[in-house]
Amino acid sequence: MHMPLPLAAVIEQLSSLPSIGPKSGLRLAVHLLSRPPQEVQELAKSIANLHQKMRFCEQCGGFSEQTLCRICANPKRDQQTVCIVEQAVDVLMMERGNHFQGRYQVLHGRLSPVDGIHASDLWLKSLDQQIEQGSIQEIILATSATVDGEATAHWLARRYQSKPLQVSRIARGVPEGGELEYLDEHTLSRALQQRIRWES
Amino acid sequence: MHMPLPLAAVIEQLSSLPSIGPKSGLRLAVHLLSRPPQEVQELAKSIANLHQKMRFCEQCGGFSEQTLCRICANPKRDQQTVCIVEQAVDVLMMERGNHFQGRYQVLHGRLSPVDGIHASDLWLKSLDQQIEQGSIQEIILATSATVDGEATAHWLARRYQSKPLQVSRIARGVPEGGELEYLDEHTLSRALQQRIRWES
Repeated sequence: MHMPLPLAAVIEQLSSLPSIGPKSGLRLAVHLLSRPPQEVQELAKSIANLHQKMRFCEQCGGFSEQTLCRICANPKRDQQTVCIVEQAVDVLMMERGNHFQGRYQVLHGRLSPVDGIHASDLWLKSLDQQIEQGSIQEIILATSATVDGEATAHWLARRYQSKPLQVSRIARGVPEGGELEYLDEHTLSRALQQRIRWES
Repeated sequence: MHMPLPLAAVIEQLSSLPSIGPKSGLRLAVHLLSRPPQEVQELAKSIANLHQKMRFCEQCGGFSEQTLCRICANPKRDQQTVCIVEQAVDVLMMERGNHFQGRYQVLHGRLSPVDGIHASDLWLKSLDQQIEQGSIQEIILATSATVDGEATAHWLARRYQSKPLQVSRIARGVPEGGELEYLDEHTLSRALQQRIRWES
């Protein structure tokens, strides 16, 4: 196939991204060719900047442009409540609704013996220090609702149960807009068990 | 939402690409952050190179790195058979199977009064010259099977019918793997009309 090399390079690299196959890669590359060169240069520049300008917050491990991320550096956030998540992207997800006023701790993984991820691999040093200093009142376990995520939550709960703080786990149940017909039995069973009293 | 700016920039630009929404944009950007910086720089460079290193072939209008594309410059290709397609990407599609040995002419559009695309907008100058020189034996109309594509094919057929060359149109019918149950009536009707004798 007579594919010009500059085009082939972009298609190959785009196709290696998640959820983009060779067909979408081709479509995207051709779309880029059809756009003004200036606009495509902007995209290239932003991608090139990504690693150069982004790092992990020294305190929470979330995405940041500075030593401390904007959440950790914000005095208006509740400094005593820390939500533990697995990945830096989870912080972005939690922040979408502006429903949480506390801070975060990113584990950068979850316990997974199969994948060789052990307790010592989790980013907990900064949090442990803060707990030793007595500056944390509540820890919210927001690891994923998977087998490994649950195991990690259990491990964290045991780890901090002797400390003078409250440990909680985010609720499991029927997601917003979820129709019972399409929900798995475990979710339904949990939603029943953890039902809360109707307050009118 | 506390989204670091370099990340927000990539997400916004990726999300503006076809078939990538804000959610996929976020997932892709986070994936890029998780990859080795070297690899992400390569992607940025390839995208930056795209417009700089690619142009349209002076003869056929297809994608090319040189003045003449590799198809037009290849003496082994049948120089007398020209397949007319709408877009440069269509050439890539036709070339995938290596079933065609002729050359191409890219119109860079199709007649569409609604979109203000008229005959004078179509890239036909080079082909017209070749036809005047008597160097073309057959023209294959491979415009799309849409209303505008059909109209363009009709217009091209009329335009070249007085010339000493053969004009043909790619076949319409049931696509490979197509089940009759899911085919529209026009395709079925065409497939019936244009049935060919079974040769055993």
